[in-house]
Amino acid sequence: MTSFANRLHREILKKQTPALVGLDPRWDQLPREIQERASQQGGSDAAIHARAFEEFCLRVIDVVSGLVPAVKPQSAFFEACGPDGSRVLANVIQHARNAGLIVICDAKRGDIGTTAEAYAAAYLAGEDPQAAPYAADALTINPYMGVDTLQPFVSRADAVGAGLYVLVRTSNPGARDFQDRQTDDETLYTAVARQVENLSLQLARGETYGSVGAVTGATYPEELAVLRKVMPHTPLLIPGYGSQGGTSQDVAAAFDGRGLGGLVNNSRGILFGFRKGPLAEEFGEARWEAAVQAATVKMIDDLAANTPAGKLRQSSK
Amino acid sequence: MTSFANRLHREILKKQTPALVGLDPRWDQLPREIQERASQQGGSDAAIHARAFEEFCLRVIDVVSGLVPAVKPQSAFFEACGPDGSRVLANVIQHARNAGLIVICDAKRGDIGTTAEAYAAAYLAGEDPQAAPYAADALTINPYMGVDTLQPFVSRADAVGAGLYVLVRTSNPGARDFQDRQTDDETLYTAVARQVENLSLQLARGETYGSVGAVTGATYPEELAVLRKVMPHTPLLIPGYGSQGGTSQDVAAAFDGRGLGGLVNNSRGILFGFRKGPLAEEFGEARWEAAVQAATVKMIDDLAANTPAGKLRQSSK
Repeated sequence: MTSFANRLHREILKKQTPALVGLDPRWDQLPREIQERASQQGGSDAAIHARAFEEFCLRVIDVVSGLVPAVKPQSAFFEACGPDGSRVLANVIQHARNAGLIVICDAKRGDIGTTAEAYAAAYLAGEDPQAAPYAADALTINPYMGVDTLQPFVSRADAVGAGLYVLVRTSNPGARDFQDRQTDDETLYTAVARQVENLSLQLARGETYGSVGAVTGATYPEELAVLRKVMPHTPLLIPGYGSQGGTSQDVAAAFDGRGLGGLVNNSRGILFGFRKGPLAEEFGEARWEAAVQAATVKMIDDLAANTPAGKLRQSSK
Repeated sequence: MTSFANRLHREILKKQTPALVGLDPRWDQLPREIQERASQQGGSDAAIHARAFEEFCLRVIDVVSGLVPAVKPQSAFFEACGPDGSRVLANVIQHARNAGLIVICDAKRGDIGTTAEAYAAAYLAGEDPQAAPYAADALTINPYMGVDTLQPFVSRADAVGAGLYVLVRTSNPGARDFQDRQTDDETLYTAVARQVENLSLQLARGETYGSVGAVTGATYPEELAVLRKVMPHTPLLIPGYGSQGGTSQDVAAAFDGRGLGGLVNNSRGILFGFRKGPLAEEFGEARWEAAVQAATVKMIDDLAANTPAGKLRQSSK
């Protein structure tokens, strides 16, 4: 079996970029043609929204699957459509995997013992895309309840070749409320980071990276550099690029000398770039898929020009 | 509109107990008759398990709805059945609400901004049981990401008369990894507790309790007493009673002089009491519903005899 870390890096090397496309469908922002087609089939608002989310996400996947190594569906938007949304989430994940993409389900789950096992069984398919109802390669999880609540996820990930991204330092202003608190001469998020590194090191088995990753939405580039040092064997998932204000320079410290070790997420900037600014002017809503493609290529080029991820292109030549 | 806190306490006063039945269906533990009936209809394992979970939970609800004020379905077990499980979770919640029960969906969600809004819209119906696809009265949420990530849940709860239970101190051994850490001369969980109290006080509007509650699985009764003092306006949800080793004496400090302010959860001890021990001997698997009823009554009597919840009986006379 190939570990998640190895599968991810294989795909990053193949696509020559660490760009990650977040699938955060929002009804109000969808192209009108999709809203209208979904509405014409009738049903409850939840059913209509779910239908529209499915068409939108599948078409986005078809645009980006040749460009990026991975996508990250945000579970909340699908759950808000009820059971119809859950069915669509499963289909979106399956479509992305069929397209050769690594899928990170962003659901931020966390619970004790057998409950955590149930979440892991629900979302962690790992290498075999039939091995879970929501057949993701990896899942985001929340560490607040403690390391024993991460362990069932880690065991499952190890067994099926799946990955995890543990919330370490998030990019929202409120991250300072608890994550940034000093405790035993370190921040809480550093304490969490050390535990994540331990888990990932166990799964690395002598390779550079294990399959337990960390979500590190650093506010300052220096924070990310520190976190990278604390977690040398941990794949990083970095939110906040683009519409949340992060730049390629801000994320550069995530990568090793080969351009590996990090994924940089962009959701709204890619999905809804057609709604305003230069992409709206160039493509407009009618050519929204071309705008999605252009936004993705622009991000890829930006990361290649301004971070060690540029090495991914050189090494393939 | 009636707030969640008031609706909850009305139901506690009516049933004269703070006992909460956790709905944690586990396939291996289900009565064989239910497993067999679900299997006979065929389909995938997920479809069979979902079907069995539905019959089991609906029958448990029918047994306990006259006895307790509230039930707490654990989302993970339903999610593990995929979209079929999500449909069953929605049905279980609806059935419990139709039976007059308060429903706390235990999903431990947490995310930023509009993503948190999507989770809140998915799970917080509040007073109107048609107002969300998973139409719970209240939802458990995780505070790690910070107070700004709790706020969208609080706003929704305030708007629809729903409630929240924020993880403060959980009952698993690993709770000490992060929650128990000292920070600024207090534990992290006390810091979280103070923020929860602030939020609940805002929603209380002069009444004793607000609708932002706390999950407080204290290891020692003294911890619970401290948490109760830090959060005088916060409804508490206490896990760990029964099969996790907690006793009625351990939870007594949760209650005010009227016997209000707390809910004590029991899942396995009630659902699967028929599998071993005195209830297995008395009822056996064939009369599992009678065992569920007996376990519930036993817990209610224990709480009435050994905690201030006994006042709920006296005050009604």
